[in-house]
Order: sequence, then structure tokens, then C-alpha cells
Amino acid sequence: MKKIKIAFLGHGNVGGGSCEILSENMELISKRIDKEIIVSHILVSNMDKPRKWPTLGAKLTDSFEEILNSDVEIVVEALGGIEPAASYMEKALKSGKHVVTANKAALAAKYPVLMAAAKDSGVSLLFEASVGGGIPALSAILGNLRGNRFFEVSGILNGTTNYILTKLGNERLAYEDVLKRAQELCFAEADPTADVEGIDAANKLSILISLCFDKYVHPEDIPRKGISDITLDDIEAAKSQGKKIKLLGTARVKESFELTDAPKSANNSLEIDYFVEPVAIDETHPLFNVDNEYNGILIRGDAVEDVMMYGKGAGPLPTGSAVVGDILKIAENL
Amino acid sequence: MKKIKIAFLGHGNVGGGSCEILSENMELISKRIDKEIIVSHILVSNMDKPRKWPTLGAKLTDSFEEILNSDVEIVVEALGGIEPAASYMEKALKSGKHVVTANKAALAAKYPVLMAAAKDSGVSLLFEASVGGGIPALSAILGNLRGNRFFEVSGILNGTTNYILTKLGNERLAYEDVLKRAQELCFAEADPTADVEGIDAANKLSILISLCFDKYVHPEDIPRKGISDITLDDIEAAKSQGKKIKLLGTARVKESFELTDAPKSANNSLEIDYFVEPVAIDETHPLFNVDNEYNGILIRGDAVEDVMMYGKGAGPLPTGSAVVGDILKIAENL
Repeated sequence: MKKIKIAFLGHGNVGGGSCEILSENMELISKRIDKEIIVSHILVSNMDKPRKWPTLGAKLTDSFEEILNSDVEIVVEALGGIEPAASYMEKALKSGKHVVTANKAALAAKYPVLMAAAKDSGVSLLFEASVGGGIPALSAILGNLRGNRFFEVSGILNGTTNYILTKLGNERLAYEDVLKRAQELCFAEADPTADVEGIDAANKLSILISLCFDKYVHPEDIPRKGISDITLDDIEAAKSQGKKIKLLGTARVKESFELTDAPKSANNSLEIDYFVEPVAIDETHPLFNVDNEYNGILIRGDAVEDVMMYGKGAGPLPTGSAVVGDILKIAENL
Repeated sequence: MKKIKIAFLGHGNVGGGSCEILSENMELISKRIDKEIIVSHILVSNMDKPRKWPTLGAKLTDSFEEILNSDVEIVVEALGGIEPAASYMEKALKSGKHVVTANKAALAAKYPVLMAAAKDSGVSLLFEASVGGGIPALSAILGNLRGNRFFEVSGILNGTTNYILTKLGNERLAYEDVLKRAQELCFAEADPTADVEGIDAANKLSILISLCFDKYVHPEDIPRKGISDITLDDIEAAKSQGKKIKLLGTARVKESFELTDAPKSANNSLEIDYFVEPVAIDETHPLFNVDNEYNGILIRGDAVEDVMMYGKGAGPLPTGSAVVGDILKIAENL
């Protein structure tokens, strides 16, 4: 059985969760792809820290150069943050290594540069875990839905804010109290700005726009409104109309049309609107019942019409599921 | 740009809908996969019948042998029914042609034979459209979710019965009256047996079992109960408990477990339960809001936890979306 050597950059929740899946399911996975995955190196910042997750016999290192100069074929970037993650990915791609990442911030900020590096080197850059955690939405857009001209992509793309909005809707608690509880449950970070101000959702929407509309929009250029101004009165007003307030990231073509009279624009040069903002939706909306920390992504195409996917948008194992799926996709073709 | 010749067997709703998508979106599709799709032949039963759908310059023929002996690389089976569809697919695979099909009945009945033929010839047999119409669930199970050990797959797999059950729940009409209306709207066939008795759902569940659990169960061996005995009283009783009756096709491992204590069974030899039957589900169930002619498929894996996908389970264009997606997946790798 052919062996495929891979390396992880980072061994926190995403890298560690992926290693946990590889550790538990390796025999099943090897059978499915008829290849053996060897975790050769793991880049960590502190070599002496006790490890929470399995290391699968990998060599721990604090030197990215060591991984870059090794014979690993796939580099899995699980550091988070824009730098040094983006530079590491670019270097790995340029040196002919395939890259898998869960890092929406780095990807959204540097998408054109990273895609160009992958293309120039003839290697893959896969990033299913960067949007919607375990939900295989990007694979669908780039895969089986590829015969469609896309009209719209819209999603509940951030689990933290969806948890807060759900709790605000179900219990008469103030925003600050719900945020505090979310932080206690580790659904929100100590500094919740990126979540509650819609920055995280904008990163993910930027990636979805690239895939659906073949157009790059920097996340800072996406009009954005977060949830920190939402009051209990807003929630109650929506409720009285049978609605829920959801933080949606949406991109849609300005004009809607049916398949048969869709403009034949091969380069997808249609004008699109895009925004991240709280929207009151009613029960006829496919995302109405996506509650708590779940994510949901609605895709509208001229042939498939509406497809909605729902699942856990975060967490070591759901996110790891998407990372491992990408690793296997590349490994299978090596 | 490399040209890929394909042939359609059948030019009804599925074959025709696929041709419509190829016709409308060809320029976009060619750009996406960097190949040109040429529809070389279309097998029809009546050469003289006026065509409802685009033929894309293909040669119409009533001879399958002509297609078998041609240089087409992909055969798209869109005839429906078990025979001659299954025999045609087997012959095409054995002659080294890739096959795409939407035909759940033929596939469920002959899965081991057809998969063996594909494997022996080193060609692909893809069938996303056979389950859930346009919903890319099979691509997810075989693709990005492949790092998971699956616990359960459960779905509203038949749009006709879901339409009938939804109408029974919303309006106080007798089963026969709703069925008649469904037939008038073309949501049900003149002979609705395969739908209302759960035969169609059992075919789809057989396919899902093969993919999730690496185990073939003939659809006739799946315990099955349809919806024709459902009374308004049943519906009202469910409603009074906040529930809806849905026809579910479900397969699940007998014992549930968390990732970390999952039995390490590489050959997926876990015992599974499977059945098609009407089930009363409450609003906490991810399939609760899948109404009318929509389908929904819930997948539970040890890493990803719950993923649910929702979309149109039938219709020329949604089904065609899945067929075209499969064609492009094969064409891209040729």
C-alpha cells in the first residue's frame, strides 16, 4: 500500500481534532482510499507542552523550514490567523506541496496569491473546513453542483453569533449575559469581536463568493453589520411576526432569472450584491431552523434550485472531518 | 480544448433535463473543467417523436449497439426501470466506458454486478442523481465525509409521499383526494405503488447502505411499510403531540457510541438496522421541516456528527444537475 507523508502546522483544536480522527479511523480510511497516511511532522510552538491530541508517531518540530525541506507531500495548515499561516502556505505550495487549510482569515485575505501559487506549481489547495466546519458545502459547489450557474449563496456562517441569537430568542436575557454564558461554554472567545461584528462571517462569505461567482472580494470590502446592537426589543418584534433574527452572509446576483432566460455569461460577470447583516427570516426560509451553534448554507443554482446544508460549524471533530476529507481527496490522487 | 464525447440513453425528463443544462451552461461548464463536452449520440425508442428537450447536435439512434461500438467515453443511462437499463450499463462498463446513471431501481437491484464491472474495467460508475435528486449527498459520503465512521443515514427519500403527507397534515383531506391532486400536479404517477408503498425509498436506502456501510442489502430485503394506511386520525394524533409523520428510510448501527470508544472495525462489519416506514418526528428532528416535494438526507458520522442536506428530490433540472455534475467529474479526469 502506497504511503503518503503529511505534516501538520499546528496541533490545537483543528490540527489535533484531525489527528484524533486519523488515529481512530486509520484502518477504515486506508481501506477506503487504498493508501496509507503517515503523519510525518507536526509544527508546534512549544515543544515541551504536554499534548492533548494524538501525535501518531510524528516528529514534533518548531521549525517550519524543516517541514518545507522534508519529503512530505501534503501540508495541513492549522495555525489560524493570517500570518505566518499565509506565508507558510505560499511557501509550501511554491515548493510543490499540496496544502489543506481550515483557515478562513488567511484564505480570504490572500486568496488570489494562494490560488495562483497552487496553480503555478500544479498542486492542490483545499479548504473545505474554512467555511461551515464539517458541512461539505465547498466540495459540493466545486463538485457535483458544478453544472449550475449560481444565483445566490447565503448562510449562517458563524456558530457563536447563532448561539447568542438563539438564546436571546428563547430566553429573556440581555445580550451581555448571553455572551458571557457563550464564553463560559467556549462557544465564544474572550475577545468576541471577530464573531459578533461579522468579521468571521465576512471571511467565509469572501471564500463562498470566490467559488460561486469566480470573483474575489476582499473581506474588508464586504458591507458588514454585526449583532452587538441587537436588543431584546428587536428580537421580540421579530418574534411577534413569527420571525427569527439570524446573522446572514449573503451574495446574490442582482437580477433573478429562470434557467431558460439566464444570461449566457461564461465568465460569470454578473453583478452581485453581498453583505453580512442580521436579517429577520420567517419559517418558510430554509435557514429558519438552523439554531444554536449550528451553521447552515443555502445554495441557489439555475438547475438544482435550492440546496441547503446544515451541520456543526465548529469544534475539533466536525472541523477535523472536513480537513481529513480534503487530505484523503488529495492522497487518493497521488 | 480537449473534447469528451458522451452519449445519453433516453431523452425523457432526466436525459432531457441534463441536455437542457448542458445546452444552457456549456460555455460556463467548459471554462470550469477546461474540456469540451460533445453529446455524440442519444438513444431514443421512437426516432420520429418530436423532441421536447435540446439534442445538442447529437445523432439520434434506436440502437444501443451503435453507441456501444462508438468512441463515446461516457454513457449516461437515463432510461429508468431495471431492464434493459442494467444490462446496457453492464455492457458499457465492460467495454471500458464510464457510466453515469440516475436509475435507483437498476442500481439497487444490480449494485454488486455493476460495481464489479466498473472495477474490472477500471472505469467510473457514478450515480449521484439516483438518491435525493439534486442533493449532493452521495458525493459527500464518498468525498469530503470519507474520514468518518458512519453511524446512521436517514432520509425523506421520496418526494411524492412527502408531498402527500404534507398536504394531509395541512388540510383535512382524505388520502385518496390528496393522491388524486398529487397525480394532477404530476407529483405522483398514474400507478403510485412504487412511491406510496415505499419501494422507491427502499431502492434509495439500499444505495445509501452500500455507500455508508460497505454492505449490500437488496431492496426487497429491506423491511418496508408505506403510507397508504395512514389515516387522518394518525396525522391528527401526531399533530396534537407537535409531531409530523414522515416516510423515512433509515439505516443505523445497532449500538451508538462516541468517536473515542467506537469499535475499530476496518471492514465496517458493524451490525446495522434498516427500514422504510412512516415515523412521527418532532421539531427537534433535522428532517422535521422538510415538507412538500422536497427531500432531506441526514448523515451521522463519528467526526462530523450530524449533517443534513435538503433540496429538490426530483424534476428534470434538479436531477439533471446531479447527472451533469457526475459527467463533469469524470470528464475532468479524462
